[in-house]
Amino acid sequence: MLTRREFNRRVGAGLVGAAVAPEALLALQEERPVPCRPTLINGERLWESLMKLSEFGKVEGKWVGRVGFSPEDLAGRHWVMGELEAQGLEVLVDAAANIRARRAGERDDLPALWFGSHIDTVPNGGNFDGCVGSLSALEVIRTMNEKDVRTEHPLELVIWSNEEGVHYGRGLFGSRALAGRLDPGELEAVDEKGARLADWVQRYGGDPERIGEMTPPSGSIHSYLELHIEQGGILWQRGIPLGIVEGIVGIDRYQVTLEGFANHAGTTPMNQRRDALVTAAKIIQAVREIVTAEPGRQVGTVGYVRVEPGAPNVIPGRVEFPVEIRDLSMEKIKTLADRIRARAGQLAMADNVNFKWEAVSSHEPALTDRRIRLQIQKAAEEMRAPTLTMPSGAGHDAQSMAHLCPVGMIFVASKDGISHSPEEWSRPEEVACGCEALYRTLLLLDQTEQLS
Amino acid sequence: MLTRREFNRRVGAGLVGAAVAPEALLALQEERPVPCRPTLINGERLWESLMKLSEFGKVEGKWVGRVGFSPEDLAGRHWVMGELEAQGLEVLVDAAANIRARRAGERDDLPALWFGSHIDTVPNGGNFDGCVGSLSALEVIRTMNEKDVRTEHPLELVIWSNEEGVHYGRGLFGSRALAGRLDPGELEAVDEKGARLADWVQRYGGDPERIGEMTPPSGSIHSYLELHIEQGGILWQRGIPLGIVEGIVGIDRYQVTLEGFANHAGTTPMNQRRDALVTAAKIIQAVREIVTAEPGRQVGTVGYVRVEPGAPNVIPGRVEFPVEIRDLSMEKIKTLADRIRARAGQLAMADNVNFKWEAVSSHEPALTDRRIRLQIQKAAEEMRAPTLTMPSGAGHDAQSMAHLCPVGMIFVASKDGISHSPEEWSRPEEVACGCEALYRTLLLLDQTEQLS
Repeated sequence: MLTRREFNRRVGAGLVGAAVAPEALLALQEERPVPCRPTLINGERLWESLMKLSEFGKVEGKWVGRVGFSPEDLAGRHWVMGELEAQGLEVLVDAAANIRARRAGERDDLPALWFGSHIDTVPNGGNFDGCVGSLSALEVIRTMNEKDVRTEHPLELVIWSNEEGVHYGRGLFGSRALAGRLDPGELEAVDEKGARLADWVQRYGGDPERIGEMTPPSGSIHSYLELHIEQGGILWQRGIPLGIVEGIVGIDRYQVTLEGFANHAGTTPMNQRRDALVTAAKIIQAVREIVTAEPGRQVGTVGYVRVEPGAPNVIPGRVEFPVEIRDLSMEKIKTLADRIRARAGQLAMADNVNFKWEAVSSHEPALTDRRIRLQIQKAAEEMRAPTLTMPSGAGHDAQSMAHLCPVGMIFVASKDGISHSPEEWSRPEEVACGCEALYRTLLLLDQTEQLS
Repeated sequence: MLTRREFNRRVGAGLVGAAVAPEALLALQEERPVPCRPTLINGERLWESLMKLSEFGKVEGKWVGRVGFSPEDLAGRHWVMGELEAQGLEVLVDAAANIRARRAGERDDLPALWFGSHIDTVPNGGNFDGCVGSLSALEVIRTMNEKDVRTEHPLELVIWSNEEGVHYGRGLFGSRALAGRLDPGELEAVDEKGARLADWVQRYGGDPERIGEMTPPSGSIHSYLELHIEQGGILWQRGIPLGIVEGIVGIDRYQVTLEGFANHAGTTPMNQRRDALVTAAKIIQAVREIVTAEPGRQVGTVGYVRVEPGAPNVIPGRVEFPVEIRDLSMEKIKTLADRIRARAGQLAMADNVNFKWEAVSSHEPALTDRRIRLQIQKAAEEMRAPTLTMPSGAGHDAQSMAHLCPVGMIFVASKDGISHSPEEWSRPEEVACGCEALYRTLLLLDQTEQLS
């Protein structure tokens, strides 16, 4: 990790760098210019906060991350709430355990500008996913207070609960709750230790009984803006600091089950086998072929294979695997799924293997608002920061908010596209650049009339 | 299961049948003639013993099988030892915990005719694999005693310990020990409960200290003959009761490891992926293609795939799987392995995925003795039983014995080729036929001079 002193030295001297090892730093200094120089927000103060937050998520001194609804996450939240209170904000925990902090505007009758992100992580995850956006939101408040900036619209800073959804298996918990999009019975889910989700919400200071009434009245939200790391390698590869998100892709998940016949691998001739893994292998290739057969940014993935019985000397009798397809167009997703299903069925039939295709889940794409994208673009131009317009392949709380108001998202580059890993990294330079863009975009949106 | 009464009724009435459901029985009656009618051994008594042995292998009333070196297996062994003792044989447990029972010949200076099998099973395995041969050996003794038959050569009945090798991971334990072919340190192996293999041998009545001295002197064994179920579907499909085994195939096992790069399945474009599972899918197909590309009875199997990290939304970064190849010719095995390795390496390189190919184990084929095959053929002709000469795709204790003496093996048909399953089944008719063939072959071998 970069120390504060080192950060001072390098930013002060106009040097560039980040990364972990000094050798890597030197290489980066040659390759990567400073993407833009923040003139309003305090990048050093922001980075310091990021480093402080990264202290929460250790068990007996060892980094484990801050899984949503865990003691580590709760401790991190208390620290963030303290920082927000120190800025003179009234900090609340809403019914779904989201942290909410309001800053009054000149005209409190106007709808509020919402912005924020999350601070929970996957197990053993990174310190940037969610945190960059959450602490940049804090830095925005600090900067406004420091500069005595007063917006027309009220500001509503939000830090969403259990975005990752590792605990209880469903992501975007807090934002879905706000948008009235929890599953029936979701609050009654019980984890492996017997703890109910509703109990955790209560322990966090939420009120599960009142989640049903928490959705804000129509028209009370001007827009929602979220800064986040890209979690992919596109910006990093091209040396572009900022992404303007076109939308969050839709995600369909299917489960394929193949039933052949398990038998002795020594005594069953090749022409009498019904080997479910051989058929699975053909289908896995077909997924890739079909998804890449046409232009576009659609992706399709088989993330694992379960084989039964699963011994070197037994012919696989049963194989199960997921097929996940993502794109900004739901129509394209359905077309690809239909093609994969048809081809997989043919392959299985030809191999005399039983084939089952089940839809597991389907999430609609959430498009960002064109007028917000224009304001982000304008902010980046003020900063002379290059941008790339791109989809978000990952899910974000902004997609829940898209049910309530116009949304926008800003990405900052992730080193090598690595995410959900302790190796996740964004350079202080890009983090500061992202925060400055968030700050400037909020001020531009404040000048914009009601969007919805 | 067929009851004794039902067996009596049907065999007595000259009816045919077996299987579990009466409907299936009727179908079988039409399709399958009695393969041969035993005139010497007592098929009913043999079946009754099989049913009795199947009582050992239950835990709290539930069938689990008799894993080698387990309390269930030990109880089954005690019952078998009692049956052998009841035949007036002196029953010993040798140093490697094999059950050994000697029956004197007219000339005890002649080398002994060895015969037998095993009674341990895989977890939740069947009641025929090993048991048919072991209890047919018992039935041979009973018949000889009953008919007062005295052989020229001494007889050595053997029931091998831990043939399946589920416990401690290495099969053919007792026969390899006898042939002086244990791995260095194998006796010191410790299971998941902390028990040493040597301790289990001792608990069974063996003497691990003396395993090194147990190999019989050269020339003291005339031959080894084993009756076993086929564990494949070839005999059953063709309606042939008996197989004359040409040899036990050689088995090479390799482990393939592919290292791509695990990343977010939403944010990583298709053309930037290093998806180890897609490459694995190509290699799994290549294994099948290469093995089936030329005529012959060679088989090649990928029995499982391990994928890391293994989530629907993460690109597989690391995949590991075994490749197993079997054939009667070691040369063919090596040629196929070389082709698969070369092709897999090319596929991995084209996908920018790291490729590792490790040889895990290699077992030489063990050919049976031509003169013993002729005696089995002669015995079958006496019985007017059709036979098929065929390889054994599965491993058997006979392959250890092939290091010490000429060996022969007789197969009986397995219903639908199912094995290592509670559904494993051979009809009483074929079981009796196999036992009769064993009995007759032993008598013919007794008339044959030293083979080796």
